[in-house]
Formats: sequence, structure tokens, C-alpha cells
Amino acid sequence: MVATQKFVISTKGQGDAKDITEKVAAAVSASNARSGTATVFVIGSTAGITTIEFEPGAIADLNRVLERLAPRDADYQHHLRWGDDNGSSHVRAALLGPSVTVPFVDGALTLGAWQQLMLLELDTRPRRREVVVQIVGE
Amino acid sequence: MVATQKFVISTKGQGDAKDITEKVAAAVSASNARSGTATVFVIGSTAGITTIEFEPGAIADLNRVLERLAPRDADYQHHLRWGDDNGSSHVRAALLGPSVTVPFVDGALTLGAWQQLMLLELDTRPRRREVVVQIVGE
Amino acid sequence: MVATQKFVISTKGQGDAKDITEKVAAAVSASNARSGTATVFVIGSTAGITTIEFEPGAIADLNRVLERLAPRDADYQHHLRWGDDNGSSHVRAALLGPSVTVPFVDGALTLGAWQQLMLLELDTRPRRREVVVQIVGE
Repeated sequence: MVATQKFVISTKGQGDAKDITEKVAAAVSASNARSGTATVFVIGSTAGITTIEFEPGAIADLNRVLERLAPRDADYQHHLRWGDDNGSSHVRAALLGPSVTVPFVDGALTLGAWQQLMLLELDTRPRRREVVVQIVGE
Repeated sequence: MVATQKFVISTKGQGDAKDITEKVAAAVSASNARSGTATVFVIGSTAGITTIEFEPGAIADLNRVLERLAPRDADYQHHLRWGDDNGSSHVRAALLGPSVTVPFVDGALTLGAWQQLMLLELDTRPRRREVVVQIVGE
Repeated sequence: MVATQKFVISTKGQGDAKDITEKVAAAVSASNARSGTATVFVIGSTAGITTIEFEPGAIADLNRVLERLAPRDADYQHHLRWGDDNGSSHVRAALLGPSVTVPFVDGALTLGAWQQLMLLELDTRPRRREVVVQIVGE
């Protein structure tokens, strides 16, 4: 069986991290599937999904490395095209990726105790993010 | 149900980007599934799959960051082994990843309007790439 | 149908790479599914899963780039929180990602000849890693 859940989450701009573990777990519960996969996918090309120990230190560390990798205030060819200022967002999002697929067994996601699902906003302005949780299971 | 589609795409070497969104959407249509996931997987260890706003500026920006991260002309231990010159390709591909799984609902991929599926060639020479689209749905 | 396989693998600490292709292929065989996807997911937030040409040179090259990206001995805010020393591990793991989904067709993973599934230990100490292989197919 396939079940689709969507939720919306508002972010404050680049570096804002949201723990979406509970929402994904709720989507799995609502599907009544016992075993399968939950594909967590963020719509848009300037945000990313990954797992992390969701505490402010680790998130700040990740953001600092991303800033060094693709600095917000550097020159980007993307800016020339649209007058945008979010070239750093596009590069970071392409590297981080828009989705993670997580198994679930007996109705529970197989995450570690210190491993949460995170949506990381990479755009330079606040955004309203739509996340699709696609459950395939039985 | 499961449906497998494959397609081949020729690339011009490192940094050549291909928008494969249409091919993946066609694979979903051909499967007749209405809802599920499409796993887009490139065979080989020197190419990557991700999503991006597919315009030349953003792609050039991403390539420039990858070049800084794993410069093509640096020394790589991989070169010592095979006499290859594509150590940078292997590092970039391992970081970018070989696949993205995208949900589809009512027969349509849940991509954003400015979010395309991209195959990024990372090898140092032109390649003929085989991409598997594995559709699991109903 | 859905089939879950788990295996445990011991690692020696940061940079230790394990070729898990055989274990994942065995899980696919054991499921008796002919076609579908295998989602390979490592439990925990300080390890990663990706594909690579599994030879010591390419692995050393990847580890060197990760060390430059998030140096082990740099200062991390994560360290302040727990007295941990593995801030570099969390950053690297969030970037690499905890899972890869690989299609299989006629009972065989669609990997390239020089493309292996790798678990990369990123923590600063030896760990016992639990990997979930979730097979969805028919």
C-alpha cells in the first residue's frame, strides 16, 4: 500500500533547522502500515533533508561548514540570472539533497536514539516549506 | 507493483549536467501507477543524481564549489592505483550520492516548479550513463 | 511485499570503511523478491552510507576531503554541550547522509561493476553499527 501525507512548516531563513521526526512518525502511524519505507521529500531547490543529532551545537557546526563551503556573500552566477541572492542556497541544497528514505518496522522508524530527521532551510529568506511523506509498506 | 525503466544518456565529461526530469516523469507515466516512489539511480561511481533549479548559473556555481572541494588536478591516491586521473570524480560522486527517491501522487512527481532532477557527470571524460528508474507504487 | 534484514558491523573509528555490498545482496536474495528497492540505512548520527569504487585509494581520498571540510581537531559547538569530541563526525554524517536506496531487478542490485555500497564510520571511536536493509518489492 501507498499513503501520502503532507505537512507545511515555516522557516526563518538560511540555517534554520526543524526537527520533523514527530511529524514523519505521525504520518507512518496514520498510514496503519506496519513495515515499509517513509520517503521524506522537501519540495523546492533551496532546502535540504538529512538526519542529525538535533541539538543546537551540532546544527551550528553544520551551518558553519556549509557557510565555508558555499559562503552566502560570495559571487554566484545564479545571481546574475535572476537578481537573486541565494546562489549559496542552491549549491548547499544540491549537496545535501532533498530527501531521505527511512525504514519503519512494527510501525516505528528505525532511527537511533540521537538521530532525528531535520529539514534545514537554506534559502536566504523565510519560507513556507511543504514536505511530502510517501509511505510504501504493508 | 514495481516497474523498471532504464534510459541511457551521453555526457561530455566533468561538470556536464543533464536535466532528466522529463525522462523520469515519462517512466512514471508508463508504469500506470498513480501513487508511489520513483528511485532514480545512476549506475557507476563517478556520477551523481540530485535536484537543483536547472539553469546554467546554479549549475556553474555547484561545479565551482565541487572543484574547490575536490580539485580535478590535485593529487589523489586513486591515481596511483590505476593510473586513472579521476580521483576528484570518485570523491565528488561519493558526496553527492548515486540516487534520489522522489514521491509521485496522482501520477505526477512532487517536484517544485523550479526543482529539476539532474544527472551530474563527474568523470573526467565523456561517458554513456545508464540510469535506472525504479517505480514502486499502486 | 516488505522484508526487513538487519546486520551488525564493527568499525575501528573515523574513516574506517566497510564494503557492505555482499550483505545487502544477500538480504535481497533472502527476501525472494525479484524486483524492487533496497533501502540501506545506518542507525545513528555519526556514520554514513554511500556508493564508491571500493579501493583503498579512493577511500583515502574521500577521507582527506572530509577532513579538510570538517577537521577532526577543530572547535565544534557540539563539544561544549556534551564534552564530546565528535563534532566533525556529526557534520560529515549529515552531509553524507544515513541511507542509499538501490533498485534491484531479477534479484540483482543495479550497481556498476566498480560501484560498491559502503558504510563509512565517521565517529572518533570504534563503533558497533546496526544497518537496516528494507526491501520493498515483488
